[in-house]
Amino acid sequence: MHKNNAPWVQTVTLTPPSLKDNTADADRLIQALKSHLDPPVIDIDFDLLKVLPAVLRNSRFNIRCILFKEKQNWVLTGIADAKDATPIAGLAVDLGTTRVALRLLDLNSGRILAESAFDNPQDSVGPDILARIHFAEKEDGLKQLNILIISALNNAVEKLCASQHCKPEHIYALSVAGNTTMTHLFMGLDPRWIIREPYIPVVNRPGVVKALALGVCVNPRARVFIFPNVGSYCGGDLIAGILFSQIYKKSRPCMLVDVGTNAEVVLGNENWLIACAGAAGPALEGGVTRMGMTAGPGVIDQIGVDLKTLEFKIDTIEDLPPKGICGSGVIDLAAQLFLAGMIDIRGKLLPAVCGSKIREIDGFLNLIVVPAENSATGSDLTISQADLDSLIRSKAAMYTILETLTGSVGVSADDLESFYVAGTFGAFIKPESAIAIGMLPDLPLDRYKPLGNSSLGGATLALETDKFHMDIEQIRDRITYLELNVNQDFMNRFSAAKFLPHTNPKLFPSVKVGAQRLHSPGGD
Amino acid sequence: MHKNNAPWVQTVTLTPPSLKDNTADADRLIQALKSHLDPPVIDIDFDLLKVLPAVLRNSRFNIRCILFKEKQNWVLTGIADAKDATPIAGLAVDLGTTRVALRLLDLNSGRILAESAFDNPQDSVGPDILARIHFAEKEDGLKQLNILIISALNNAVEKLCASQHCKPEHIYALSVAGNTTMTHLFMGLDPRWIIREPYIPVVNRPGVVKALALGVCVNPRARVFIFPNVGSYCGGDLIAGILFSQIYKKSRPCMLVDVGTNAEVVLGNENWLIACAGAAGPALEGGVTRMGMTAGPGVIDQIGVDLKTLEFKIDTIEDLPPKGICGSGVIDLAAQLFLAGMIDIRGKLLPAVCGSKIREIDGFLNLIVVPAENSATGSDLTISQADLDSLIRSKAAMYTILETLTGSVGVSADDLESFYVAGTFGAFIKPESAIAIGMLPDLPLDRYKPLGNSSLGGATLALETDKFHMDIEQIRDRITYLELNVNQDFMNRFSAAKFLPHTNPKLFPSVKVGAQRLHSPGGD
Repeated sequence: MHKNNAPWVQTVTLTPPSLKDNTADADRLIQALKSHLDPPVIDIDFDLLKVLPAVLRNSRFNIRCILFKEKQNWVLTGIADAKDATPIAGLAVDLGTTRVALRLLDLNSGRILAESAFDNPQDSVGPDILARIHFAEKEDGLKQLNILIISALNNAVEKLCASQHCKPEHIYALSVAGNTTMTHLFMGLDPRWIIREPYIPVVNRPGVVKALALGVCVNPRARVFIFPNVGSYCGGDLIAGILFSQIYKKSRPCMLVDVGTNAEVVLGNENWLIACAGAAGPALEGGVTRMGMTAGPGVIDQIGVDLKTLEFKIDTIEDLPPKGICGSGVIDLAAQLFLAGMIDIRGKLLPAVCGSKIREIDGFLNLIVVPAENSATGSDLTISQADLDSLIRSKAAMYTILETLTGSVGVSADDLESFYVAGTFGAFIKPESAIAIGMLPDLPLDRYKPLGNSSLGGATLALETDKFHMDIEQIRDRITYLELNVNQDFMNRFSAAKFLPHTNPKLFPSVKVGAQRLHSPGGD
Repeated sequence: MHKNNAPWVQTVTLTPPSLKDNTADADRLIQALKSHLDPPVIDIDFDLLKVLPAVLRNSRFNIRCILFKEKQNWVLTGIADAKDATPIAGLAVDLGTTRVALRLLDLNSGRILAESAFDNPQDSVGPDILARIHFAEKEDGLKQLNILIISALNNAVEKLCASQHCKPEHIYALSVAGNTTMTHLFMGLDPRWIIREPYIPVVNRPGVVKALALGVCVNPRARVFIFPNVGSYCGGDLIAGILFSQIYKKSRPCMLVDVGTNAEVVLGNENWLIACAGAAGPALEGGVTRMGMTAGPGVIDQIGVDLKTLEFKIDTIEDLPPKGICGSGVIDLAAQLFLAGMIDIRGKLLPAVCGSKIREIDGFLNLIVVPAENSATGSDLTISQADLDSLIRSKAAMYTILETLTGSVGVSADDLESFYVAGTFGAFIKPESAIAIGMLPDLPLDRYKPLGNSSLGGATLALETDKFHMDIEQIRDRITYLELNVNQDFMNRFSAAKFLPHTNPKLFPSVKVGAQRLHSPGGD
């Protein structure tokens, strides 16, 4: 037997019992497994004892063992003849407030078998955490929320398995990363104290729970690793992201930004980690503009402006006719408008420059991005001054959070070895555009690294080897959560960041405003 | 909070959460408990997390915790307001093949609340282990046997609790000591390999199992400590007996004898333990004589013979009219007959001495112990020559086992600091009678110590403190099981032990055969 990285599946050959060695079946098996596992402490799931004698003898004492790591010890969750080729699967879950993503893995090789995602059905109760917690306080409210997420997960697991000719009972290990409230709702734990001073979760380290106890329909002996949290506002999803980014192993400081419903930011290295979260997010996802939406087919994700003709060059996802614009598209648009001199450094539309692209609707200025004849909706796709103002506030908030975080530990943006941008936002954003509007610091572009779904990535790693479970515990214990104190200093920074790219152009030396036209505050 | 011997119930006051200390409820509780428990590793039963926030806040963070020890860590199985006075009970179980004994305890003080016992209903399937194992191999046989014992236990628990104005759900911890087969049937584990060479149990160290998983109707979070075994023929009941006798802590060697269906014998001290079992028992319990029965009201437990008149002086349990004679009574009778010269050193009835007490039935000699007019049954209570022959074989087997065991480690009977006699046998036997017939070695009488139900006693200790769980593990690991090898040497010893008290009278210097009459082999 070889020691691989994934210790979950071990094939062992036991010395058959004899009159000189009459150790019991269970103890004999534990003895054989001990030399392969660290620490050599192994529990056998009680139900397995019922089939153990027959499996051992039918397989002539040559068996395949499925294990998982609980806090202090290993637990045996499955046994079969070594020749048995039934799949042994694991399931990584990113438990988002809005969307839940699943990844099915071969637990032995770590190979990804399939992925899927579904909208969190708790959205029907309330779109945000606050509304759901209030609902949970009603009679049976918590139970309803719990059933919503568990049933949807069970349905999705069944479909995902069916697509791979495997069955839910072939799943022996799960790992779940979610924010603190979602984790509580998933576990059926009362979340009411999370939103009330002093903001106390029921549990920081849920550890490993039996799938059966959670109502998750997989193998009845399967174990679920649930990511820990640092507190009510620094959840398992962020810890999974840190794990996935590996910033906790870097010698030089790195930054990780995950923009979802909230913007969550972590700064740190192998010695320290500091995290904070702020409401920078909503303006960057669907909802920022009347045509705003999340990334998807037909959605504008990149916009260029011809500096001479001021014509838009539109790219849509899957090259379909444009039907809206997502967060990264809005950032691209604002950057191009600014570089082309179509908006000033306050983000105000300049009718003199925009010309016929400007239309006044209900007394407010609007810029036509895609005229009706070219759009998928049959109407003009426009962006309003109010949309731009909202974006400016968002980008200012994001920059101020980053600046506050680096400032709190005396690190300058230049010191950052890497700047990881997670999630859909990270996948679609063009760092040069985010820099142009002063949303992200002016670093060499190659330091910006998209991470994808870092929460799902971290959850996947937790199914790769138990070494990551120790890393997760270390990350949790090392994080300092920085409570954003909105004081005068913060407000001053925020005000300075509300200009494009910033009141201090020395912070953004690479941003060259388009050729001839330069605009000073107040000049349009 | 004081550290008591029984660590299962701890009252702790938590520092209420604040903005400066926003640790989660569960982690805060674990932190508070850590300083009171060794090792400071504590798991919380998942279901308790659901009520934890409310209990903490309703009690103003002053709570009573119920804990139990699993292998490596503590597990929290109950929480309540510190002012809550609901009983917290434990249940010790001696899981006998023939009879099951229960003892209800206050888990905090260790005080015994009540006891009861019931006949093992598996007797309907087969009176002995062998018959039950064969039944377990039939379709659903194991399930039926398991349900028989679990249902009977649940019934008995309910009655026992009702007698104490407490409820089964107030029982948070159980400990169960039984032989290896009974333990398997109790756990629903396949016992078939126990009786087939090389005699392999499913498990040696069952450890701690949830009551719910076993079907035992007590608190759903209760844990069950199940005594380990050394092999198929050296079970948890014997280990419990060793624990209770404390011979594993003595500096000088001691002996422990438990006569039930089998005679189980342990010899040892703080450094070593050697055990063996043999079929010496049946002749000593009910069944040895036509009037034989187990100890109970009206049963003859002591007999004296007036050396002049040769009249019997009968003592019965509860002084009721005699209805039969139990094992200890038969030993008393044989000793008195021998000392009075009414049987010879081969155990043969001497008609010349017994006179009118002898009656020939179907060609065999019988001795009338109680004439019909004095007996509770209306018939003569008699003992036959065959009964006496059977007793002689039993006592010879017992003595040979003891001699083989001491001989195997070069210890002489004189070296024994104490000789513990467990069970009903130990409670009723008069050591001087057992010595007189050469069943037990000729030690000063004060070295003989009755233990009572040592298996139940050991199970009770396992509910007293977790330190005994470590002792149990050490006892298990220290026992050497001596397989009785019935070779020529054993048979020679057995032959020598078939005389009263022995062919070598130097082994029994205290046995003075009654006055005038002396009998040589063959002389009657």
